[in-house]
Amino acid sequence: MELTAEQIAEVLGGVVDGDREAKVTTFARIESGKPGSISFYANPKYEKYVYSSKATIIIVNKSFEPKESLKATLVRVDDAYSAVAALLDYVTAERKKYCRHRGRHCHIAFSSKIGKKVYVGDCSFIGKKAKVGDFTKIYEQVYIGEGVEIGSRCIIYPGVKIYPGMKIGNNVIIHANAVIGADGFGFAPLEDGTYRKIQHTGNVIIGNDVEIGANTCIDKSQIGSTIINDGVKNDNLCQIAHNVEVGRNTVMSAMVGIAGSTKVGEHCIFAGQVGIANGLKIASNTTIGAQSGIISNINEEGEVLFGTPALKHREFLRAYAVFRRNGRGGGKQD
Amino acid sequence: MELTAEQIAEVLGGVVDGDREAKVTTFARIESGKPGSISFYANPKYEKYVYSSKATIIIVNKSFEPKESLKATLVRVDDAYSAVAALLDYVTAERKKYCRHRGRHCHIAFSSKIGKKVYVGDCSFIGKKAKVGDFTKIYEQVYIGEGVEIGSRCIIYPGVKIYPGMKIGNNVIIHANAVIGADGFGFAPLEDGTYRKIQHTGNVIIGNDVEIGANTCIDKSQIGSTIINDGVKNDNLCQIAHNVEVGRNTVMSAMVGIAGSTKVGEHCIFAGQVGIANGLKIASNTTIGAQSGIISNINEEGEVLFGTPALKHREFLRAYAVFRRNGRGGGKQD
Amino acid sequence: MELTAEQIAEVLGGVVDGDREAKVTTFARIESGKPGSISFYANPKYEKYVYSSKATIIIVNKSFEPKESLKATLVRVDDAYSAVAALLDYVTAERKKYCRHRGRHCHIAFSSKIGKKVYVGDCSFIGKKAKVGDFTKIYEQVYIGEGVEIGSRCIIYPGVKIYPGMKIGNNVIIHANAVIGADGFGFAPLEDGTYRKIQHTGNVIIGNDVEIGANTCIDKSQIGSTIINDGVKNDNLCQIAHNVEVGRNTVMSAMVGIAGSTKVGEHCIFAGQVGIANGLKIASNTTIGAQSGIISNINEEGEVLFGTPALKHREFLRAYAVFRRNGRGGGKQD
Repeated sequence: MELTAEQIAEVLGGVVDGDREAKVTTFARIESGKPGSISFYANPKYEKYVYSSKATIIIVNKSFEPKESLKATLVRVDDAYSAVAALLDYVTAERKKYCRHRGRHCHIAFSSKIGKKVYVGDCSFIGKKAKVGDFTKIYEQVYIGEGVEIGSRCIIYPGVKIYPGMKIGNNVIIHANAVIGADGFGFAPLEDGTYRKIQHTGNVIIGNDVEIGANTCIDKSQIGSTIINDGVKNDNLCQIAHNVEVGRNTVMSAMVGIAGSTKVGEHCIFAGQVGIANGLKIASNTTIGAQSGIISNINEEGEVLFGTPALKHREFLRAYAVFRRNGRGGGKQD
Repeated sequence: MELTAEQIAEVLGGVVDGDREAKVTTFARIESGKPGSISFYANPKYEKYVYSSKATIIIVNKSFEPKESLKATLVRVDDAYSAVAALLDYVTAERKKYCRHRGRHCHIAFSSKIGKKVYVGDCSFIGKKAKVGDFTKIYEQVYIGEGVEIGSRCIIYPGVKIYPGMKIGNNVIIHANAVIGADGFGFAPLEDGTYRKIQHTGNVIIGNDVEIGANTCIDKSQIGSTIINDGVKNDNLCQIAHNVEVGRNTVMSAMVGIAGSTKVGEHCIFAGQVGIANGLKIASNTTIGAQSGIISNINEEGEVLFGTPALKHREFLRAYAVFRRNGRGGGKQD
Repeated sequence: MELTAEQIAEVLGGVVDGDREAKVTTFARIESGKPGSISFYANPKYEKYVYSSKATIIIVNKSFEPKESLKATLVRVDDAYSAVAALLDYVTAERKKYCRHRGRHCHIAFSSKIGKKVYVGDCSFIGKKAKVGDFTKIYEQVYIGEGVEIGSRCIIYPGVKIYPGMKIGNNVIIHANAVIGADGFGFAPLEDGTYRKIQHTGNVIIGNDVEIGANTCIDKSQIGSTIINDGVKNDNLCQIAHNVEVGRNTVMSAMVGIAGSTKVGEHCIFAGQVGIANGLKIASNTTIGAQSGIISNINEEGEVLFGTPALKHREFLRAYAVFRRNGRGGGKQD
């Protein structure tokens, strides 16, 4: 990137206070700005850095009145905090110009249907009858099985593996080495102590505007579909088992595991390393603290839970206070 | 798939009750059957769906007597529940006709030995002196290091990486992006505070009829072997460290971690996110609840454990009842 | 490998006691040695195996005086325990002769800079302006994005994916299917209940002598860098979120998760499945027990912590003793 103060002001609807021609090529935090970088100042506790920063340009709120002299050119905007995201968006979009590309050593089955301006990286594989929508970017070393359907404007990062028959909506981002559609984990015990594999012929359906983290696994159903609804955001190294359904706009941090056939509501927030047992219903707007384990239905919306097995957060805190006091006093006074 | 009621009856040893020529192309749950689909009815609580279902064919027990009129053709069998698995097996086997295939851009070392009707996908790599048994399918983008031995009728899904020297039995399934044989995690602390890597020259030995989940890691030993015995089933995102041995027919759900040199018995069941410390012995037939942590030997067979550090399940439940009561009452009454 | 007793004595600075020409081709544990293998005897509790072992050569301490007759040739050294590591190093180094290699179907961008004797495996991809130092080995099916910098003598195992712009030092080992530089997990909630993606334009900086486990994920920052300092060792399936910094020589077992912007000190040791919340500071020399969860700053160096939320280890043990007693007594006596 290379942007002048004037261009930045235009993008953000702001006003330049200083050198209109000042040029930046990179972003930096306010506390570590260097010449040629742009920083943001929104949180008053960082004010001292505005004066000492070596950043060439600093984005500030219109209301900001410097108490000392400063070297940087300021770009004054209505809301410096949200201006960060807006400028990052602008820069990223600039980089992400759509183009048609066919990598070398990639395989695109004759019977597949590939949209307009689709990028297919080197050594990627697109199976028979697969469909890929317009402007989708499939990076290098991706595997897309037979009959997979992927919508438009998706980004499929290197090494993603999508088993045959899976369906993926529009504007979906899948990070590197994620696996969509491996067999659900199901075995019937036999009399001799061994297990018989239960075949899984279902699929995974992923809605629009979903993001799936790196190395995350979403398994297919035995019959029917594992469903990830619109707007779900899923961090790295998560496990979504067969026949699970995750409601719209639910957000999961890294390493969350959800066991088979559990139905999760909308707008839930799960912190890292949460585990949810199989066959449960989790109401919408449930918040679950890190490392908690859920082993029964959550029927009421809006609960905040913690612990294994999880309790209401306040209950957990009180219970843990007693547990901890026992540790301090050697356990005698109770 | 395309099957008539008559064909299905033949496969399942059942009897058609309705249109022998009725055709289906897909499976559906009884509650969401559509024309052209086949459903199963075994659990009485779903009986109402038998009458309202739009499925073209429904598999039922021979003893089933409809209380209302119904549209679907029935196929009556001895056990509708196990008929699901049998028909899924039949359909899956149909799809899985063995064939010899050499993908483009794959590399098969001249000194390797490849059996009959082996499929090797695009961009896969098979190193020097590796051996692959008959009817094994190696999907696209797989890496098989020098001297690896893989038995017959195995399925190695896309992106699996197998380090040099590993040994894998017959009828083994390894899901996408699993890693077999990375270095065990071992470092000797030096006086200057840094660590010296301990080289791992051992291997991983996987028996017959084992299934390994997507993105699971099984590390090799320093000396000797990490051993996964016959019939072990391993879900996604598990970690099996160096020099571990897992006994026959032990089953692990997703995200289980077993630290170095621990020996696990036969027929154990570990739920999701269980952790087992290093150097332990876990007796056969041990069941460990989700997220539990094991930090000492389990000597007695057949125990059911829960918590971190794990207690006997009943003990844990009683202890947790007290913990929880403290949370409700504010901790005062105890 | 093929080594005689004499060669081994030379490598280890030891003395042969037996047949100087005795030849070995593999390592074995003392309790399972076979003809043609070499074993080590350091721990007195294994003494009986020295006499029964079928190993051709056994490394022993100079001070060892056999109490029975034995068949193996002995190589006597100052410290049999550390001789294991030294001989493994020697053998591994023998195997790892550097060579220039360009795999088939790999892509090396014209504008990239590749050092001396660099190995690039089949189907690997090296993007524009990437730099790779001397003697680095990039295995098969690796993705190295535009502008990535990798130092010298690194080993990048098959299937590793490195997003554009990441920086990696010298002597770094990254195991199979690890992902470096996926987007940090950041979304701004919008009024309609959906989320807006926060773009991440930062990078990941990995120092020298770092080892990263298989399937581990290290995310890039929004602005600035996620930093893994020199000497850090990271086991499989770990998650290091955006903007985290990990201090020198800190060691993490498998499945550890560190949330965004947390700063970890030097020489810490985290056991398996530990979770650390976002935005925290963890002092140097902190030891955290398996499965523990950290939700507040650790300010004092040298603490040993356990539990979720973590307590000092002693405190936890006492508290847990009470918890457990409640489970045994049915909770009545407290």
